Amino acid sequence: MYQLYYAPGSCSFAAHLALEMSGASYEAIKLDLGANVQRQDQYLKINPKGRVPALVCPEGVITENPAILLFIAQQFPATKLAPIERPFELARVSSFNAFLSSTVHPAHAHGVRGYRWADDKAAIAELKRKMPEVMTECFEMIEHEMFSGPWVLGDEFTICDIYLFTIAQWLEADKVDINQFPKVMDHRARMRQLAVVKKVLAAQ
Amino acid sequence: MYQLYYAPGSCSFAAHLALEMSGASYEAIKLDLGANVQRQDQYLKINPKGRVPALVCPEGVITENPAILLFIAQQFPATKLAPIERPFELARVSSFNAFLSSTVHPAHAHGVRGYRWADDKAAIAELKRKMPEVMTECFEMIEHEMFSGPWVLGDEFTICDIYLFTIAQWLEADKVDINQFPKVMDHRARMRQLAVVKKVLAAQ
Repeated sequence: MYQLYYAPGSCSFAAHLALEMSGASYEAIKLDLGANVQRQDQYLKINPKGRVPALVCPEGVITENPAILLFIAQQFPATKLAPIERPFELARVSSFNAFLSSTVHPAHAHGVRGYRWADDKAAIAELKRKMPEVMTECFEMIEHEMFSGPWVLGDEFTICDIYLFTIAQWLEADKVDINQFPKVMDHRARMRQLAVVKKVLAAQ
Repeated sequence: MYQLYYAPGSCSFAAHLALEMSGASYEAIKLDLGANVQRQDQYLKINPKGRVPALVCPEGVITENPAILLFIAQQFPATKLAPIERPFELARVSSFNAFLSSTVHPAHAHGVRGYRWADDKAAIAELKRKMPEVMTECFEMIEHEMFSGPWVLGDEFTICDIYLFTIAQWLEADKVDINQFPKVMDHRARMRQLAVVKKVLAAQ
């Protein structure tokens, strides 16, 4: 039995979807980021970073999407969410997800959380202004260099598809022209048709 | 035989040190970031992202430190650089390294590469001004919440130690008061005494 702390619309959707796909027994616990619950003592005892997702396991707590997604893939090998027995293929998975977490997600965060890196209001406004351009560059890289098709890494569905879909849902709000990215948009449309995706979207 | 593209002083040191520790046969190829070689066509064919590190393997190219480090640990299991057979422990490894790549390294990058997220000169200066404060917050999290000791995750040396050491070398240049972080500083000092670390530092 796992407990997942999540917030609707956040990157924690990826962990939620992976859990649902894996067939794991889990409880999803919603945090109200608007009320800043993630910065209160009760949650900081679970995740001192004050962010979502956090996956509470019998052995302890796991944070950070790339780690949670790989863990779920390893714990539920029958679901085949990652090529865990093939190191080079697994490295492709880890590399793609590391790009999302270290480059794409931070690019997005500059739109609404510029205060993490600047105090000055004009500077925060400048980060927000440039964000769509940076997100566009990130998705140009994905569309033209990283996306194999039909799934992110080719014929096999992996945790990369789960994570990409999570972030691709933000593109309109991030004022990115999605017409530039037909592969990513087709992928997003196919993901949205999956019953398991509809179930998690509805649950959140 | 592997080829590692690296730049002295950059995060690619982690991949370089892991290769050396693993006993792998490899060639280290230095890129002159000052001359912007990483943005030229020849290198972009290897890594379209135009960054280091990039590890050229017989099967293809791997980028992003968390992926390269895990791959090396899997390919050379005798070196025991990660608990690859224990999913929860491996998740702790992945989580720590994901924090370094998605939060700590981007925090650092705002000091000298603010142009990634802002065009306005005053905004870039503001990012540079606040960077030491953000890096300090990151290392408070590591020192007080994440570092088990004597190594990052406890008794076992892992790829987390390699990656933490790489970034901890930047703290003085990032104007962080290192006296606040005795555990991280002791770790750094012990790492510097390792013959293999001295060898890679000298090679770069």
